[in-house]
Amino acid sequence: MTLKLGVIGTGAIGQEHIRRCSQVLQGATVVAVSDINLKGAAQAVKRLGLEADVLPDGNQVINAGNVDALIITSWDPTHEAFVLAAIAAGKPVFCEKPLAVTAAGCKRIVDAEIAHGRRLVQVGFMRPYDQGYRALKKVIDSGEIGQPLMLHCAHRNPNVDDSYTTDMAITNTMIHELGVLRWLLDDDYVSAQVIFPRSTSHTHAKLRDPQIVLLETVKGARIDVEIFVNCQYGYDIQTEVVGENGIASFPEPASVLLRSQAKRSHTILTDWKDRFIDAYDLELQDFINGVIHGELTGPSAWDGYAASVAADACVAAQKNPGLVSISLPPRPDFYAR
Amino acid sequence: MTLKLGVIGTGAIGQEHIRRCSQVLQGATVVAVSDINLKGAAQAVKRLGLEADVLPDGNQVINAGNVDALIITSWDPTHEAFVLAAIAAGKPVFCEKPLAVTAAGCKRIVDAEIAHGRRLVQVGFMRPYDQGYRALKKVIDSGEIGQPLMLHCAHRNPNVDDSYTTDMAITNTMIHELGVLRWLLDDDYVSAQVIFPRSTSHTHAKLRDPQIVLLETVKGARIDVEIFVNCQYGYDIQTEVVGENGIASFPEPASVLLRSQAKRSHTILTDWKDRFIDAYDLELQDFINGVIHGELTGPSAWDGYAASVAADACVAAQKNPGLVSISLPPRPDFYAR
Amino acid sequence: MTLKLGVIGTGAIGQEHIRRCSQVLQGATVVAVSDINLKGAAQAVKRLGLEADVLPDGNQVINAGNVDALIITSWDPTHEAFVLAAIAAGKPVFCEKPLAVTAAGCKRIVDAEIAHGRRLVQVGFMRPYDQGYRALKKVIDSGEIGQPLMLHCAHRNPNVDDSYTTDMAITNTMIHELGVLRWLLDDDYVSAQVIFPRSTSHTHAKLRDPQIVLLETVKGARIDVEIFVNCQYGYDIQTEVVGENGIASFPEPASVLLRSQAKRSHTILTDWKDRFIDAYDLELQDFINGVIHGELTGPSAWDGYAASVAADACVAAQKNPGLVSISLPPRPDFYAR
Amino acid sequence: MTLKLGVIGTGAIGQEHIRRCSQVLQGATVVAVSDINLKGAAQAVKRLGLEADVLPDGNQVINAGNVDALIITSWDPTHEAFVLAAIAAGKPVFCEKPLAVTAAGCKRIVDAEIAHGRRLVQVGFMRPYDQGYRALKKVIDSGEIGQPLMLHCAHRNPNVDDSYTTDMAITNTMIHELGVLRWLLDDDYVSAQVIFPRSTSHTHAKLRDPQIVLLETVKGARIDVEIFVNCQYGYDIQTEVVGENGIASFPEPASVLLRSQAKRSHTILTDWKDRFIDAYDLELQDFINGVIHGELTGPSAWDGYAASVAADACVAAQKNPGLVSISLPPRPDFYAR
Repeated sequence: MTLKLGVIGTGAIGQEHIRRCSQVLQGATVVAVSDINLKGAAQAVKRLGLEADVLPDGNQVINAGNVDALIITSWDPTHEAFVLAAIAAGKPVFCEKPLAVTAAGCKRIVDAEIAHGRRLVQVGFMRPYDQGYRALKKVIDSGEIGQPLMLHCAHRNPNVDDSYTTDMAITNTMIHELGVLRWLLDDDYVSAQVIFPRSTSHTHAKLRDPQIVLLETVKGARIDVEIFVNCQYGYDIQTEVVGENGIASFPEPASVLLRSQAKRSHTILTDWKDRFIDAYDLELQDFINGVIHGELTGPSAWDGYAASVAADACVAAQKNPGLVSISLPPRPDFYAR
Repeated sequence: MTLKLGVIGTGAIGQEHIRRCSQVLQGATVVAVSDINLKGAAQAVKRLGLEADVLPDGNQVINAGNVDALIITSWDPTHEAFVLAAIAAGKPVFCEKPLAVTAAGCKRIVDAEIAHGRRLVQVGFMRPYDQGYRALKKVIDSGEIGQPLMLHCAHRNPNVDDSYTTDMAITNTMIHELGVLRWLLDDDYVSAQVIFPRSTSHTHAKLRDPQIVLLETVKGARIDVEIFVNCQYGYDIQTEVVGENGIASFPEPASVLLRSQAKRSHTILTDWKDRFIDAYDLELQDFINGVIHGELTGPSAWDGYAASVAADACVAAQKNPGLVSISLPPRPDFYAR
Repeated sequence: MTLKLGVIGTGAIGQEHIRRCSQVLQGATVVAVSDINLKGAAQAVKRLGLEADVLPDGNQVINAGNVDALIITSWDPTHEAFVLAAIAAGKPVFCEKPLAVTAAGCKRIVDAEIAHGRRLVQVGFMRPYDQGYRALKKVIDSGEIGQPLMLHCAHRNPNVDDSYTTDMAITNTMIHELGVLRWLLDDDYVSAQVIFPRSTSHTHAKLRDPQIVLLETVKGARIDVEIFVNCQYGYDIQTEVVGENGIASFPEPASVLLRSQAKRSHTILTDWKDRFIDAYDLELQDFINGVIHGELTGPSAWDGYAASVAADACVAAQKNPGLVSISLPPRPDFYAR
Repeated sequence: MTLKLGVIGTGAIGQEHIRRCSQVLQGATVVAVSDINLKGAAQAVKRLGLEADVLPDGNQVINAGNVDALIITSWDPTHEAFVLAAIAAGKPVFCEKPLAVTAAGCKRIVDAEIAHGRRLVQVGFMRPYDQGYRALKKVIDSGEIGQPLMLHCAHRNPNVDDSYTTDMAITNTMIHELGVLRWLLDDDYVSAQVIFPRSTSHTHAKLRDPQIVLLETVKGARIDVEIFVNCQYGYDIQTEVVGENGIASFPEPASVLLRSQAKRSHTILTDWKDRFIDAYDLELQDFINGVIHGELTGPSAWDGYAASVAADACVAAQKNPGLVSISLPPRPDFYAR
């Protein structure tokens, strides 16, 4: 069968997902789209050579008779309502992060999905699909390094513009670590603390940069995450897992070794879009396959909710010199791992 | 449109290509297959869940009305005849290496294709589709290291069985380097020499292992290729390009850095199938896209012929302590780069 | 001239320093020694082939007419008195860390030295003499990475015995980082915090292991130091300096790259004595040269005092979940950098 | 005891050795010097603060009553006569490479030393004293990689001046590999071949650069050495030993890892004097210790002779497209390893 998809939101990432479904992945076709900018949606459909209906409203896409499943890539504050509508229509939905802009909103989605009775939602955390994280998880799960005790992480961007504020270091940037580290460790967070080093001279008044976020997990592991979004030198993601018997580090991307001008060097990527490019393909293919086979196994609404609760605590910790606790209700059996 | 493929040869690699076309790639479907083992072909079709005709003879596949293009993965000595038949039928054909088991056979294919008047043949050299080689070529082509003067290469396998003989180090193993290095350097070979170090104790009577093949190119670059098929430690491919201003080395595959038991280590792959796994997908997708868009740009019949001529010279050089020259006719305009 | 040295304390490290002065370094000779175990001292003198007086008391060594300068390698609690006696005798003294077992004791030495009017004391912090730290400091001082904002450090030992307790992670282990990082950054500490991850199963009841120490500096840099003394895998020292424009990391020791058994690997040292072996030679040669030329420039009594004040705060922070401030009096001009 | 040294030749390297003996090493003092430029010798003595006689002739230094041992750092063509004179005087002599400018000259020294009855000569091959080569040899000798089958080596300099000619790639540059590889493998050479890739545009009319020298050893190992003296990017020495079970590579020098400007990089040295700086100290200290203890164990006159014979063959191979054999007489028991 070919899965017929509706896409709500045809901005940059929406178009990327449409391109993937049309030109790269197997088993799906985009049959309907909408966007707040309807003209833009029509142009995107034309440019991508799709035969797809351009509908004036996301809800029409959700309820269109020829649409089997949804991809939500609209403006963040609209995610919750569209996902809830998809659940109400009983249609599987892939929603870009964040699942909702508040933890309460995420919780409403969780509740609706449980009420529906089977998984319909996959949230767009793509890192668990990255080969590097998979290889790292495989080493951890093998027991080779023993129980993880500490994680030293870094999330660095070359620079951000003036609209990027201190809290966005959590909600836009560290949200990726909050998502992937729970999965990597099969663990949850219990507290957060934020430390502010002196700021770099490359930042602006509304952004304290860098920041260090300290997390504690249920199992007692300690995580430190350096977030540095004006690091100048590149887009650089580091994850070092210190276990009882050894240490495993997230792979550097494969790259040419160059000997030139008195340096042995490897290129560091500068554009985040290049870093996890294959993972975007894999997460969406997994969603398509999951829908076709009737079982979604990727990041769930619960994962989106848990990340949101943790992000809220981190943002609170930015304003509070001490420890902020993170309390997540018990994981419902519905979302058993 | 969906390209309708016929596959001749449903052994291991044939089934892999069928799986790719059916489950991974876009734009194609397998509609007919054949194999010398007809029962096996039928089982493969069933196992892969295809709706495809199982025909008793490759020529019937080639001439089947519903077949748009061919994939040849049959026994090496049958390649030439099937490719010629596909050309005669005016149908595009992807042929696994070798294009033919003799240089003369390759030349007959080249002549037939030129007579036909446009490219129909792509030979299964997958390395130019590997991201590592592409990155390396990009560095070379950028001029950053200047003109290439020397290449130091290695092709190492952990071990081979008793049926692998001295000449197969060229025809089965080094054939990959012969294919990819011409492309990497945009150059051709003019001479070959083979050096035999003392053999490893891990080899057998009919295989001198390791070997070092020395090549000279039209532009004057010198290439040394260590072929060591019982190296024990892993499947390891090295290519170091020494230019006038710097050196670029083929990337090591990305892998977890492990600190454990008094070692900092990275895993080396041991199975060749894992090393270029993505490249197989890309070469076949490129063939499919090329056929659909009416222009094949991947490795050509000429490339298959050139590699075959070079391989013959290397095998001759195994039996001759001195230099063996490699003479390729001028490249026809038909195959202009 | 040849500097005539007296050595107080002929245990393991004392004998090592005697061996250095006698067999490796230039410009000095050991002419008198003492130890609480007088027989052991006599045996050491014999074994090392010295012509040196074995005196019953450290003070006799200090005051011996033929002794120009002192090396103190006796039991830690005796350091302070011997150093003060050497200052009283107007003789230069190299004292192994710690300078004194309390910050107050260190301060008494500082006061005595200032009262004396010129530098007589060098404390045995050898890391600033290590080529790796020197190279790292050179990069920082060049401005290439901009102002340092964060340091991520680790100090890992394969294991410790049952006599090693939680506080010793600071006083015996992290004391090296407290010493070298001030020098590296040309900065001082203002606060400390200690975080305890779940302990490794390889530790014992009196040792919480690992620990993470967070330091803040006068200039606003933030330092995290992982101390993990039962890490099993090796003796491993990491220092990563994150600056405004780039990151510089402490060199890994040079070592053979081995490709074997499906691994590319480098050996990690397991014995701390091997890690900074050259630095011990250099620090003592620098002391000898400094005495001969009348100007000591190595780690000073003030450096010993500052490290001691910081260590006290870190130990306090082990017992206190919050921040402990570190207050050092203003640096006297006498110790101007 | 303090060894009293005479130094013949006070050019750059002579002064360096004098500095070492005076300021770095233990157990020796320079008491007499000479140079063809007598004024320069006097100035050097003054600048280095020596109390040493400046004698008008090397032979006077050799025969001076207060001279125990000699260091020969004069013009290459004078080495042989001075070494023979030292042997005649029964005095130990450290002679910078080359031991003599012809193999026949080296052989005369070997014969004279044997006639004298015990070792008096150490030739200035410093690489066996380098920690990197020692670590590499330790891995080989451990049996961990099995019997060595192939060595891939490179000797690269950033550039040379116009006085450097094709043959000097052997006699001045590759002579180091000829010296150290025999020691590393405990083996001898049986043939040489030279291959000339297209020359770099950075060379001049009298220098073909790069060159590849292929050597075969008695044990059947094959060695390829790339010599590239205008490689532009740095001074870079590579040695990769391919054994039956694994591969060991010569360590890269320890250096800071820098993340900056979209690169992860390590510095490559550009000045050869920095690369083996510690090895020069160690070779001379070993000579001093050997003389004092009555047993020289460093590179011998035989080693100098063997390297000279091999170098002659390599120079012959530069002029001859085929294989040139290298025949060394059987090693005399006198020089048993």
